[in-house]
Amino acid sequence: MQSYGIKALLEKGKDLLLQEVVVNGWVRSFRSNRFIALNDGSTINNIQVVIDFENFDESIIKQISTAASLRVIGEVVESQGAGQAIEIIAKEIIVLGVANSDEVQGTILQPKQHSLETLREQAHLRFRTNLFGAIFRVRNSLMFAVHKYFNENGFVYINTPIITGSDAEGAGEMFQVTNLDLNNLPKTEEGAIDFSVDFFGKATNLTVSGQLEGETAAMGLGKVYTFGPTFRAENSNTSRHLAEFWMIEPEVAFFDLDQNMDLSEDFMKYVITYAMENCKDDLDFLAQRFDKEQQSKPAAERSELGLLERLEYVLNNKFVRLTYTEAIEILKESKPNKKGKFKYPIEGWGADLQSEHERYLVEKHFKTPVILFDYPAEIKAFYMRMNDDGKTVRAMDVLFPGIGEIIGGSQREERLDVLDEKMAKFGIDPEELWWYRDTRRFGSVPHSGFGLGLERLVLFVTGMGNIRDVIPFPRTPNNAEF
Amino acid sequence: MQSYGIKALLEKGKDLLLQEVVVNGWVRSFRSNRFIALNDGSTINNIQVVIDFENFDESIIKQISTAASLRVIGEVVESQGAGQAIEIIAKEIIVLGVANSDEVQGTILQPKQHSLETLREQAHLRFRTNLFGAIFRVRNSLMFAVHKYFNENGFVYINTPIITGSDAEGAGEMFQVTNLDLNNLPKTEEGAIDFSVDFFGKATNLTVSGQLEGETAAMGLGKVYTFGPTFRAENSNTSRHLAEFWMIEPEVAFFDLDQNMDLSEDFMKYVITYAMENCKDDLDFLAQRFDKEQQSKPAAERSELGLLERLEYVLNNKFVRLTYTEAIEILKESKPNKKGKFKYPIEGWGADLQSEHERYLVEKHFKTPVILFDYPAEIKAFYMRMNDDGKTVRAMDVLFPGIGEIIGGSQREERLDVLDEKMAKFGIDPEELWWYRDTRRFGSVPHSGFGLGLERLVLFVTGMGNIRDVIPFPRTPNNAEF
Repeated sequence: MQSYGIKALLEKGKDLLLQEVVVNGWVRSFRSNRFIALNDGSTINNIQVVIDFENFDESIIKQISTAASLRVIGEVVESQGAGQAIEIIAKEIIVLGVANSDEVQGTILQPKQHSLETLREQAHLRFRTNLFGAIFRVRNSLMFAVHKYFNENGFVYINTPIITGSDAEGAGEMFQVTNLDLNNLPKTEEGAIDFSVDFFGKATNLTVSGQLEGETAAMGLGKVYTFGPTFRAENSNTSRHLAEFWMIEPEVAFFDLDQNMDLSEDFMKYVITYAMENCKDDLDFLAQRFDKEQQSKPAAERSELGLLERLEYVLNNKFVRLTYTEAIEILKESKPNKKGKFKYPIEGWGADLQSEHERYLVEKHFKTPVILFDYPAEIKAFYMRMNDDGKTVRAMDVLFPGIGEIIGGSQREERLDVLDEKMAKFGIDPEELWWYRDTRRFGSVPHSGFGLGLERLVLFVTGMGNIRDVIPFPRTPNNAEF
Repeated sequence: MQSYGIKALLEKGKDLLLQEVVVNGWVRSFRSNRFIALNDGSTINNIQVVIDFENFDESIIKQISTAASLRVIGEVVESQGAGQAIEIIAKEIIVLGVANSDEVQGTILQPKQHSLETLREQAHLRFRTNLFGAIFRVRNSLMFAVHKYFNENGFVYINTPIITGSDAEGAGEMFQVTNLDLNNLPKTEEGAIDFSVDFFGKATNLTVSGQLEGETAAMGLGKVYTFGPTFRAENSNTSRHLAEFWMIEPEVAFFDLDQNMDLSEDFMKYVITYAMENCKDDLDFLAQRFDKEQQSKPAAERSELGLLERLEYVLNNKFVRLTYTEAIEILKESKPNKKGKFKYPIEGWGADLQSEHERYLVEKHFKTPVILFDYPAEIKAFYMRMNDDGKTVRAMDVLFPGIGEIIGGSQREERLDVLDEKMAKFGIDPEELWWYRDTRRFGSVPHSGFGLGLERLVLFVTGMGNIRDVIPFPRTPNNAEF
């Protein structure tokens, strides 16, 4: 007798008619002492198991309740109900695990509407809901698409360090990692903490980006990408920030900014297409949820497009590319700016763009994803390549509807003398980054890359509103449960 | 004019004859002012660029030296030399980055034999050597195979938390993560460190395993796997330990131990096959290195098999499965045990197996990979399923030639009462693991999983001897450089 996952079973459908099969799963519902909706997590869809209660012991029937787990042996038959091709007539049911209904009532497994907040507090159980099953299957699909895309295009996956002794970027927002006894910290003669006796012989932190190490790898392997956890000790309790999130950072030797823009557009379209092709049922479910949620919003905040339309819109439009300088002109002359509708009015060149500006460009002005490039050097990182104008750098940001900036990248400064000047201006100790400077000393090459926060991408594709709902166990201020 | 990566160029080979192409790369060698070996990291092989120095400015020729980076425009012609089908006659050479030979001499880019130790100290440059190019392309291939295997088999990739407030497993070996000012630690009234004001509102650590969280995901999604960084603050300065390494942990609902063994064997054969099919050139190079290294060892320590033979040996043999109890019998009666050759003599049941015992079973006794199972409960973790004998648990270890244990796994204890008993015996606070216990409260199911350290796998496939050489930036006691 063949055992099937429910996804495979439903896909084979009528090919299996009259065959005896084994399926395992959790009870989603049990109606009329007769119809069990069984789910095993492989798909959002349930298989209906029909039992003839006269043929089963009452003690078994009593144990069948929402959230209980079963092994069912039965025959595949054509379904009489709507929306399903097949169902299973149970011949034997083994209750693997009961679910006492009094206890279930205290949890999100109880079949009723729970707030996302409540679901988050039981993150260990939310995998068993339709919504989070769908979200995490979509997340999985996007992650696989990332690896597949880079693999097909000759990129080498590189694991840059998580624990790092380098704090050249983002100092102050980093988590400290230590093995010292905090109740008895060793001190130097001068009274400072003696990190020389810590595990790594110096103070260490959790990485905020693998880019600088990724660049060293690209300088040998040509095309590389990192994909790993990244950390920010920022005390931001918003729906867009996590203290721990997953970042994708490709880095390509010999690429200039134009090629970097091509890569980002091609990459985004590939991974979204992949998820749409491989998670149709889940995305249909999420699209319905998205519509319902939009309806409960004030008209002005509603998305003009449904979830799937918004994805299609990204796939079917060439991303508009324009310089920061051009964008500032458009924004300065825009209606919301003139009417004082922007929270941060645009007065002129040099302003740092906010999400409201980015979304205006994407959603109102161009009605297509936008890549802005050539930003003022002052508002961007030290490693970005200086343009000949001496004021702007070869930075790029990819802006998406509903979300604003989703990708940030640049062509890197490959000229050692210019890099040194920039590091001095930004107050970065060249000794600290000796290894980064080294890549510009021996056969330096033009190169480019970008960073994409995975959770931002999952937010966009699933249409969820809070980043805590697209990562299994969110880490935020005051929350490291599980 | 088409630009090519060198791998693609060599693969197309004679199809490109007489075409004008652009290639980029770093100079590996420059002979007779005429022959440049150019490499761009896409393959271990170089493309030969031939220049007629009479057609080039002397100033250009002077800048062409080992480690310099070039853009070459030229014509593809049939090669006169051995071992290469095509070469490029340069029409134009742009020196992208020079490499001053005095400076290069102080680095591992200088073309001579460097010790692995020296290469490690310049980890940021070792990507540019043949050896590390090969290692990291093989590592990449194995990582992609991991994702591909699980994707094809319906597993959902789950990111379990890196920062965790849970220290139920492996306490004492964990790195602490904090955002407190170590120079001014807040204290409670009782004088203890007040972690309630730390970023997460409590003491947190870096994860030692995603298994427990992975189990909660499998209890909803059915088949899941984690693949992420894992940490040990163990002060082990050996060739087999890293403080930061990447771990693969599948977890499958409804799987018993037999299915878990099947999965581990199928999985290992798949990923090794994938690397062999996709990294032929790199593995040939590594196999030559392996042979050379074996020759420098005393006869008794030499591997009987070459690198590729050892891989084939894993692929072509069914893994022998035997109980711990059977293994102890074999070991007790073995020649090395009787002759006192084991460092840790086997006296009887209950002994924890050492690498020497595992390797004896694999390399001498069975001459095939071995899966040992049903270990004494005392030497295994609390979450492993108790057998009816009351002494052994459904643990399994997969043992490989040359390496010993490569995978450790088990069927998990799904019975809440038995789990509670075990936790009490192991001194684990049930309140701490309330969420883990929860998965046994509502529809608990039999389930199984295992863990594989990626770097152990890369060691095995590349034949390298030190784990620091198979991860880009190793973290070990007193070393968190880069």
